[in-house]
Amino acid sequence: MRSNLAVSGNTMPIATGLDVRLAARSGELDAQTAGLAPGYVQGNLAILPRDYAEDFLRFCQANPKPCPLLGVSEAGDPAIPALGADLDIRTDIPRYRVWRDGEAIDKLRDISDVWRDDLVSFVLGCSFSFEDALLEAGVPLRHIERGSNVPMYRTSIPTQRAGRFRGPLVVSMRPMKPADAIRAVQITTRLPAVHGAPVHLGYPEAIGIADIAKPDYGDFVPVERGELPVFWACGVTPQAAIAAAKVPFAITHSPGYMLVTDLKNAQFVL
Amino acid sequence: MRSNLAVSGNTMPIATGLDVRLAARSGELDAQTAGLAPGYVQGNLAILPRDYAEDFLRFCQANPKPCPLLGVSEAGDPAIPALGADLDIRTDIPRYRVWRDGEAIDKLRDISDVWRDDLVSFVLGCSFSFEDALLEAGVPLRHIERGSNVPMYRTSIPTQRAGRFRGPLVVSMRPMKPADAIRAVQITTRLPAVHGAPVHLGYPEAIGIADIAKPDYGDFVPVERGELPVFWACGVTPQAAIAAAKVPFAITHSPGYMLVTDLKNAQFVL
Repeated sequence: MRSNLAVSGNTMPIATGLDVRLAARSGELDAQTAGLAPGYVQGNLAILPRDYAEDFLRFCQANPKPCPLLGVSEAGDPAIPALGADLDIRTDIPRYRVWRDGEAIDKLRDISDVWRDDLVSFVLGCSFSFEDALLEAGVPLRHIERGSNVPMYRTSIPTQRAGRFRGPLVVSMRPMKPADAIRAVQITTRLPAVHGAPVHLGYPEAIGIADIAKPDYGDFVPVERGELPVFWACGVTPQAAIAAAKVPFAITHSPGYMLVTDLKNAQFVL
Repeated sequence: MRSNLAVSGNTMPIATGLDVRLAARSGELDAQTAGLAPGYVQGNLAILPRDYAEDFLRFCQANPKPCPLLGVSEAGDPAIPALGADLDIRTDIPRYRVWRDGEAIDKLRDISDVWRDDLVSFVLGCSFSFEDALLEAGVPLRHIERGSNVPMYRTSIPTQRAGRFRGPLVVSMRPMKPADAIRAVQITTRLPAVHGAPVHLGYPEAIGIADIAKPDYGDFVPVERGELPVFWACGVTPQAAIAAAKVPFAITHSPGYMLVTDLKNAQFVL
């Protein structure tokens, strides 16, 4: 479904999370990470000053479905041993975004020059893990078939506030036949570390989505006759909360350019 | 939700499966078993001549969602030790139905007089077990709130044929809010011995139900705005297959008057 990507014009096999990180670190890899190192857990990255770290930790703890925390670094330490033996968070992601006062102001391929001793890195589970599990089980995913981004929507469901972080739950939507929706609930229930079970299915308006054809992020995919729109909590939720909190300085991954860890998706199946 | 029922004019506590069986055996209990012996597994009963037993076993094996087999007796033996230490299938159910050539011809409270040495008893899981789990989890069930029978429908989904047994899958329907439907998929997935996860949700016409307001068995309950109809494989499926096969002689429980076993629902949660 997802094949290895061309890297610097050559097609090199990228078999493990470490392969991806080393290729990003060397500058060879400048591509989205979907499909790279199949079976390895990919994660969303949020780097915040220590002053905001405790609030953000509590925000993740209070909202585990959109913010499934996989790992947290020590302040100022670019390593996260729990996620990878050889991991430098400053170089191991192909593309970063730098934020000031809640606005994305810069795109970088290496954040060593803006690194600070008070920065804490948070890695959160992402939907790639559960999408792999769904595809393995034969559940079709239309946005992947179309080669587009998953559609995402701000909802009327509030997150639970923690200190300076708050905001609406953002969800991703995948249209499914009813039997596939049931199977998808079963499969994703067993993956609580990567958003878990859907939060809603069937009625977009019930969760504050006025027009399913107009996602707030990503690309629209049609819901065909006889299908149900199925909604999962989405990792964009914490990014929206970071933006809304106007954190003076933050770094995230660039959408689609994820941290690939040494963990395997299979480790997270309950 | 379900309280103990008056028995012979008195209200006696019926705490265990054995209590129910002994009360039925003595003739004291002539009531539906819903709510009796909370936590104990109740089962559907089908008694068939040995000539049909092997086909029926294969039918259950091939269709485990509508026919979750809990226990099978030796031919001619009224005991089923796996389901209860002191259990006589001829007397321990409050009401029986006797079938000839696919037609219900008699109602009995004791089948000792029609017992034969070639009869094999099959006990199949029933929805009472998963309904208890749903109620425990705070998922409302409208037919129980209304004190009516669950609505059941013949579908266009065929069962897998085994010898002389075949026919449509029969489903029960419970209307639910989307979040409750997701929770119900999770809960019933963990109870495969009692019908397991839903087979469909959302679109009745997709499974051959032309008019949701006209169930084939049981009582209609309305699906309110913002709710989804959720469909489970139903234990009426094997009864319909037995009737369609025009088995020359068979005995079943009377709907609602179940065999209460010594097993606990909690034993069946994966």
